[in-house]
Amino acid sequence: MSEPLRAVYFNGTLTPSPSESHTELLIEASADILRQQGVQVDVVRAVDHVIAPGVQPDMTEHGASEDAWPALWELVLRADIIVLATPIWLGNLSSVMRRVIERLYAHSGELNDAGQSIFYGKVGGAIVGGNEDGMKHVSAELVYALQHLGCVIPPQADAGWVGEAGPGPSYGDELDDGSRAGFDNEFTKRNLTIMAWNLLHMARMLRGGIPSEGNDRNAWERGSRFGFHNPEYR
Amino acid sequence: MSEPLRAVYFNGTLTPSPSESHTELLIEASADILRQQGVQVDVVRAVDHVIAPGVQPDMTEHGASEDAWPALWELVLRADIIVLATPIWLGNLSSVMRRVIERLYAHSGELNDAGQSIFYGKVGGAIVGGNEDGMKHVSAELVYALQHLGCVIPPQADAGWVGEAGPGPSYGDELDDGSRAGFDNEFTKRNLTIMAWNLLHMARMLRGGIPSEGNDRNAWERGSRFGFHNPEYR
Amino acid sequence: MSEPLRAVYFNGTLTPSPSESHTELLIEASADILRQQGVQVDVVRAVDHVIAPGVQPDMTEHGASEDAWPALWELVLRADIIVLATPIWLGNLSSVMRRVIERLYAHSGELNDAGQSIFYGKVGGAIVGGNEDGMKHVSAELVYALQHLGCVIPPQADAGWVGEAGPGPSYGDELDDGSRAGFDNEFTKRNLTIMAWNLLHMARMLRGGIPSEGNDRNAWERGSRFGFHNPEYR
Amino acid sequence: MSEPLRAVYFNGTLTPSPSESHTELLIEASADILRQQGVQVDVVRAVDHVIAPGVQPDMTEHGASEDAWPALWELVLRADIIVLATPIWLGNLSSVMRRVIERLYAHSGELNDAGQSIFYGKVGGAIVGGNEDGMKHVSAELVYALQHLGCVIPPQADAGWVGEAGPGPSYGDELDDGSRAGFDNEFTKRNLTIMAWNLLHMARMLRGGIPSEGNDRNAWERGSRFGFHNPEYR
Repeated sequence: MSEPLRAVYFNGTLTPSPSESHTELLIEASADILRQQGVQVDVVRAVDHVIAPGVQPDMTEHGASEDAWPALWELVLRADIIVLATPIWLGNLSSVMRRVIERLYAHSGELNDAGQSIFYGKVGGAIVGGNEDGMKHVSAELVYALQHLGCVIPPQADAGWVGEAGPGPSYGDELDDGSRAGFDNEFTKRNLTIMAWNLLHMARMLRGGIPSEGNDRNAWERGSRFGFHNPEYR
Repeated sequence: MSEPLRAVYFNGTLTPSPSESHTELLIEASADILRQQGVQVDVVRAVDHVIAPGVQPDMTEHGASEDAWPALWELVLRADIIVLATPIWLGNLSSVMRRVIERLYAHSGELNDAGQSIFYGKVGGAIVGGNEDGMKHVSAELVYALQHLGCVIPPQADAGWVGEAGPGPSYGDELDDGSRAGFDNEFTKRNLTIMAWNLLHMARMLRGGIPSEGNDRNAWERGSRFGFHNPEYR
Repeated sequence: MSEPLRAVYFNGTLTPSPSESHTELLIEASADILRQQGVQVDVVRAVDHVIAPGVQPDMTEHGASEDAWPALWELVLRADIIVLATPIWLGNLSSVMRRVIERLYAHSGELNDAGQSIFYGKVGGAIVGGNEDGMKHVSAELVYALQHLGCVIPPQADAGWVGEAGPGPSYGDELDDGSRAGFDNEFTKRNLTIMAWNLLHMARMLRGGIPSEGNDRNAWERGSRFGFHNPEYR
Repeated sequence: MSEPLRAVYFNGTLTPSPSESHTELLIEASADILRQQGVQVDVVRAVDHVIAPGVQPDMTEHGASEDAWPALWELVLRADIIVLATPIWLGNLSSVMRRVIERLYAHSGELNDAGQSIFYGKVGGAIVGGNEDGMKHVSAELVYALQHLGCVIPPQADAGWVGEAGPGPSYGDELDDGSRAGFDNEFTKRNLTIMAWNLLHMARMLRGGIPSEGNDRNAWERGSRFGFHNPEYR
């Protein structure tokens, strides 16, 4: 019997535990679907950890007095599914999420045994929540980073909630009528569901990895070109 | 024996045929690799076609006197691989590429027999060329759009070339020493190669489609929730 | 007595006249304030004009059979205020607005008598409308382009309306209760007002132009450096 | 005699002092011009300070054990010119710069005596450096944030340096021939110069502030509408 799939969600909220995080509510809605299917889920509230600034795998080797990243990286390394989840401030992702991306990026030079980026075989997705505007732009930033690092992005791998223009309630806030902001939004519910299942489907399809022909960077270094040549010009 | 894979590249250059397009040089470097592996490739220089403004599949049904899109859509429909390729102007993708995205988006409500977005089972990638700056931002816009529509994005599905800050030669321009701008750039060559192969690998893996559990929008309409429920709150 | 101020609004809707444009409703709310203060306002629905693709001031000199841009450029040239207004499709500005930006960019090399970019002395703003999400990202793209060309951006020069996540009514659409979407939004109303007034205030302050010391590109070409030297390094 | 103008540069480098920062080299080239004109300049390397996560003016009042922001805010408050300077990682601004923006944003509800955003009367600009690609996108994010908060953006208020696609030297790195990367780039030098002077020109023009008609939020709260009414619809 095969190992269960593993997923890691990074929560980029600016609010340390144990305070409530609206972003975590969105994460829970998504993670719950994966757990029902047997996926082992880790959720990391990044702001609870001292993640040093820098673009090296372990910043204590570069002068930082403390760095929680190497331990968090272990969760990434064994995960089949990586989800970056963030609130929106001034139309963009949080400083805490940006820090997570920088530290993931620190590993972009690492290769697996097939000479591929160490992220190959993992799938990635984005969850974004805000009280207004910015979900698509922030998702684009997250999804771009994940595929650039080497993750596969399943179809419709972005989901979340934002309200109407202007200040307003965040996802899950109690409204005057006792309901919760965003909980009735069909679009949010459907997209969270589709995204969770597509992460699952793709992770299962990638269990055997991705063939290394053409993406083996060690072979490229040794001179293989896999059919590439510069274009003809007139 | 199975059908050969098909790819369609959209070239968003502002320059009509038969003038040279720098973007097309990048396309050719990529398409050549796919052709060597038996993929049937269509390249559409969008500016050569009268693609009507609008977000409906056929704008002649909405007042446009002419619309080349329905014929181009046939190429998309049968393609396994969609690559959006664009030049950069003022740091962003071209108006011609934006038009292509709008018309792809016009089909976002169409479903296949499994109730999935009509783009399911296709893989997408981005090629970006400019004389300076903007490759990553434009790639993010392209990759985001493709995954939002329903394509799978393979690892490292963005490639291209930009020069140093400030006006300068475009990809393929002859330099003073007789060489061609960008042709010696290892990063550009390697990434074009990795991207082409990863499009191929993923397209092969997706030949059987993506399981429809959780992403069947017809079932969702009928009330299936695939395990989704709103999060608990404190 | 001084000449009245002039403003030009470009509407990037995909819908030709005489059909209604939601974006035009937002424009009218803004332009109305300027008109009350004596500003002469032109509104250009760009999709009604054949604006050729390209990055030259007059594309008929570069093979285009038709080009409405040179006539539209006259409106820009005499305007004190330029407002770019666009709908959002798939999280981004329209192909029609992108085309307008490309053609504005075609004039980026033109200088006024003081050796400054031809856009100096003009102020710029952004209006964005959509049925959901994207206002801030699109505003950032518009405002960036305008300041890069040489416009001054007043404080809080972006305004508009978007609804909650998911498909929904556009600005001005009639709702079930007979009200109009967005018309009750205090944030939208206040920001449209602040923006209009700030465009006006800054345009008045810039009536005498901007001093040319340091930004005179002719002088730079002739060797003036205005105090610049490369930084010291250790 | 009037007070000298004041400028504050925020450096978003991930590298703490005393290590060298490429971004600081770009800052110095810019600040040097301002200093020559009598501007008093503060440069803040944000990573050297413990700036707490959050969107309140003083996070020690919201559970943080330490927060350097309130002291840094004093520098912003008295500055006429604010420049946000950042390196690029994975095509975007740094987590440290994002943190600075979040904390500036925490003051977006504060008003001056005229009922205007507390940022009114200040001018803003962006400096961006990277070894490749991303300058325009990052500048757009920075410039957008500054104008949204209430700063005026002068013409051409973005400057910096990036190299050709792919890993390479950063600004100021010593090259094989003993020269420094970017130091010969005319575009970088000219734009840093134009930007510095335009910050200066606009700051001088804004010494008397911006008229408050139409942007007085206290008056808006009390019911003034400054000519705004919802658009007519058909």
